Amino acid sequence: MSAPIRYYYDKMSQPSRALLIIFRLSNMPFEDCVVALRNGEHLTEDFKRQVNRFQRVPCIHDNGYKLAESVAILRYLSAKGKIPEHLYPKYFVDQSRVDEFLEWQHMSLRLTCAMYFRTVWLEPLLTGRTPTESKIETMRMHMERNLDVVEEVWLESSDFLTGSTLTVADIFAACEIEQTRMADYDVRIKYPKIRAWLKRVRQSCNPHYDVAHEFVYNISGTGPQAKL
Amino acid sequence: MSAPIRYYYDKMSQPSRALLIIFRLSNMPFEDCVVALRNGEHLTEDFKRQVNRFQRVPCIHDNGYKLAESVAILRYLSAKGKIPEHLYPKYFVDQSRVDEFLEWQHMSLRLTCAMYFRTVWLEPLLTGRTPTESKIETMRMHMERNLDVVEEVWLESSDFLTGSTLTVADIFAACEIEQTRMADYDVRIKYPKIRAWLKRVRQSCNPHYDVAHEFVYNISGTGPQAKL
Repeated sequence: MSAPIRYYYDKMSQPSRALLIIFRLSNMPFEDCVVALRNGEHLTEDFKRQVNRFQRVPCIHDNGYKLAESVAILRYLSAKGKIPEHLYPKYFVDQSRVDEFLEWQHMSLRLTCAMYFRTVWLEPLLTGRTPTESKIETMRMHMERNLDVVEEVWLESSDFLTGSTLTVADIFAACEIEQTRMADYDVRIKYPKIRAWLKRVRQSCNPHYDVAHEFVYNISGTGPQAKL
Repeated sequence: MSAPIRYYYDKMSQPSRALLIIFRLSNMPFEDCVVALRNGEHLTEDFKRQVNRFQRVPCIHDNGYKLAESVAILRYLSAKGKIPEHLYPKYFVDQSRVDEFLEWQHMSLRLTCAMYFRTVWLEPLLTGRTPTESKIETMRMHMERNLDVVEEVWLESSDFLTGSTLTVADIFAACEIEQTRMADYDVRIKYPKIRAWLKRVRQSCNPHYDVAHEFVYNISGTGPQAKL
């Protein structure tokens, strides 16, 4: 019997949380390798040489095979039969619809939610400097342009992003949007469809969703009552 | 016999060029549907309703099935047997190495090359305003941080990005890097491995590489002699 995969991740990283939820939902055994980004554990030469040449998380080691990039990892593990078909379809047409979202999100939803989080929460923490109102406004505008697309296009006529049931697309998207809570952004105010969809995603993924978002809930200080 | 796919693209778009080269290298028949981004043809309601709900290129229609996002399109056509295995491997381990690059590039190489091009070439054209030296410098720094990774990590010990032979990863990457020539950036100066690799990619893909880059060569004004 082969060893379980080693999973390197940090719950502060959005795609790390997405894979964590997906692995747990899939009942896939894995060895928990937590990397504390806040301590710069990923920045050492040892990490680069031994864990991930790109010095990021998430990544996996599968019996010595090292792979980075959350979506590539997901596809690799799906090909190995570790991810159930209802989460990532095997039929190529259905799979392409999920892939379309996974490819779309990088430069749109992920980039702009992460930039908003970085500007409002992370940079002030690291530098001690408060961003200007106009910079925050620009970042919010970029982010909301993509939240508009989630609300009006992806969720136009279905309960989940790519159809009537939960797939990995929803999990990746929700983890990006949850990140903005730490920067005190409440997506529920302007976006009723996203609000209802986030509830569905959380329900479909729990208890794993709440486990993955433990730090997010704590930092955003909203507590379990205010969960999206 | 089913109709060939309709391919909507503009040679000014990097992933459009990548797919164009891949389709031609694969001898895949397709219906040429050129979209003139410069005339805003993608911004009409008709385009949104009939061609691509995200109002971007590239995208395809396959007997009525509409799909966007270059990497999702590539995988879909590979699953249909339209892309030869040497360009996009079918064995899942080899495929995951190519996928790792395709997922990595979005928020790193693609984002920063595109931002450099936008800042130095596109925005001055659209607004008539020249960017400040410090803004150009910041954009160059972001881009070079990723070109460093291509030079030192991806090309560390192999002739192509994911091994000893050309795959779609190389084609996507080259099309992003070529875009910066229009902004008068010459990647060859600081990056000897990228310089030699770009030559190999062009040679492996021609005549299709030069056909796809026709506008890039014209706009950069470097002419065929100065091709990378």
